[in-house]
Amino acid sequence: MKKGHQSWVFESKPVIISSAAVGGPFEAKGAIAEDFDILHEDIWLGQDSFEKAEKKLLEQACEIAIEKAKVKKEDIGFFLSGDLLNQIVTSSFAARTLSIPYLGIYGACSSSMEGLALASLLVSSKAADYVLAAATSHNSASEKQYRYPTEYGGQKPPTAQWTVTGSGAAIVASKGEGPKVTSATIGRVIDMGISDPFNMGEAMAPAAVDTIEAHFRDLNISPSYYDMIATGDLGALGHRIAGELLNKHGMNIPPEILTDCGLLIYKQDQPVLSGGSGCGCSSTVTYGHLLNRMRKGELKKILIVATGALMSPMTFQQKESIPGIAHAVSIEM
Amino acid sequence: MKKGHQSWVFESKPVIISSAAVGGPFEAKGAIAEDFDILHEDIWLGQDSFEKAEKKLLEQACEIAIEKAKVKKEDIGFFLSGDLLNQIVTSSFAARTLSIPYLGIYGACSSSMEGLALASLLVSSKAADYVLAAATSHNSASEKQYRYPTEYGGQKPPTAQWTVTGSGAAIVASKGEGPKVTSATIGRVIDMGISDPFNMGEAMAPAAVDTIEAHFRDLNISPSYYDMIATGDLGALGHRIAGELLNKHGMNIPPEILTDCGLLIYKQDQPVLSGGSGCGCSSTVTYGHLLNRMRKGELKKILIVATGALMSPMTFQQKESIPGIAHAVSIEM
Repeated sequence: MKKGHQSWVFESKPVIISSAAVGGPFEAKGAIAEDFDILHEDIWLGQDSFEKAEKKLLEQACEIAIEKAKVKKEDIGFFLSGDLLNQIVTSSFAARTLSIPYLGIYGACSSSMEGLALASLLVSSKAADYVLAAATSHNSASEKQYRYPTEYGGQKPPTAQWTVTGSGAAIVASKGEGPKVTSATIGRVIDMGISDPFNMGEAMAPAAVDTIEAHFRDLNISPSYYDMIATGDLGALGHRIAGELLNKHGMNIPPEILTDCGLLIYKQDQPVLSGGSGCGCSSTVTYGHLLNRMRKGELKKILIVATGALMSPMTFQQKESIPGIAHAVSIEM
Repeated sequence: MKKGHQSWVFESKPVIISSAAVGGPFEAKGAIAEDFDILHEDIWLGQDSFEKAEKKLLEQACEIAIEKAKVKKEDIGFFLSGDLLNQIVTSSFAARTLSIPYLGIYGACSSSMEGLALASLLVSSKAADYVLAAATSHNSASEKQYRYPTEYGGQKPPTAQWTVTGSGAAIVASKGEGPKVTSATIGRVIDMGISDPFNMGEAMAPAAVDTIEAHFRDLNISPSYYDMIATGDLGALGHRIAGELLNKHGMNIPPEILTDCGLLIYKQDQPVLSGGSGCGCSSTVTYGHLLNRMRKGELKKILIVATGALMSPMTFQQKESIPGIAHAVSIEM
């Protein structure tokens, strides 16, 4: 492996030999529904709590990824997963079910690419032949924990985003067929003083820009290297701000290249305010939709820049601003 | 690097070139007070919240470790940290201050060794020359979040443990002087059905045993290889159960070798019930006391088996049992 400041270049090119995406009812009505392996009409997934529903969602995504990879569960060296629930219990309880040596991670919605970056590092450094990486969120479990009970029906400003009910999982292997992970850039925490939890996009946009700039500086390539650069879940407002910031920094990424997972997942007429968010956003969009497009030959080189807002309801109450982070992973066919 | 199932053998032997431990008033009265770099008489550290106090604790441990290592902050490739607060905000907010590319991790009290294992993997795989690993907990911040406000003065059963107010940090480097990280074993989640949050030791003991067995199986060595095997924070009861379980599995580790960080940190007459716990327990005991003993030549080979209880107050309320995990790291002088 070659290192470049905050980036890792995987010369052995770990392969994503399989991936899976499982979603809920809102995602079933979304713009990329066909790219989900399972779509649940029931937000409860037949469980008696939203949290148990989220665990089932994650377990299903992992099981499908394992099945598609045609490997035995026992051959998977490590399971890396993160989610939004306190103490990332969704991931940990799914790890109990899977019984694969487990590394819990947390980077809010950036957990998807933190997991894929570390999984690729593990494979690349020969720590394992197969690593399972996943990230998950559940709209109602998140709303209940972060905001108000869903039954309360509280109104939100248009800058708010809609937490995706979805789990994405991928198996990274030392060899095999599929899209390859070629590099990763680990982000720094950036905080521009935004403190409105209903405007995460604006809070995270500077972190996305910081990581994108670091990626191109470290790898000494230009944005035109990629067919698509998809930020994690900045939503409409954050996406616009990120584009403006990049321009200001002299990095003009054409609109046909720069997009956002939070904009890709839902249809324009769905009531999702500024777009999708949550660990399940970038993970299902990447592991479902985007990898499918790569497998079909529609995309050759993509950079996923998953963003995370590293606050908690408590830090908000204590009047702290929102620290943002973004981790980028480059995938090539 | 060589792999052995769920273990990593670091042939390049990453070095812990510096480490630091910062503690609070209870730790100042404890059994290993002299091994702390700073001990605060004020549980608030002059801050207006327990959470801000914990952040300061972590920042101090990191700053001291960086200072001792005589490296520039800019030369540290990555910062890995975990804690017990929801959304690991202590770690993320300290990462904002440090401005080092950041990987958030969560394994409850096992976060200390999850961080050291991953930091060593990063250094060993040449992803960075210097990596900062840390873990932290604060008694009052934890009590407030997990149990009752401290002012409430709720009574606890003798099986309960005392969350350490402490932060431990270490800098792992590709070369230099100091104790070397030789291997790591990543644990599976083990759940034996214990659901009493005031009896974490019993819930975590089987996970510690599972990881210890995996370590010796993967590395094909016997417990006598080590001068000391210290579990993370099982406390008195969990320590006894772990010893019994190991015996039952035919692995007789002499009592002078098998110990527990939760038993080492406080004096026998301190009112800490079954012993210390929290991410700050194994991190301060290891990065302060045990590494100091290694540097003095008192210990040559140690295995730290940090244990974590992967539950949340919500999973308890939903009547779930407590999943345990343990990650082991071998350090040799």
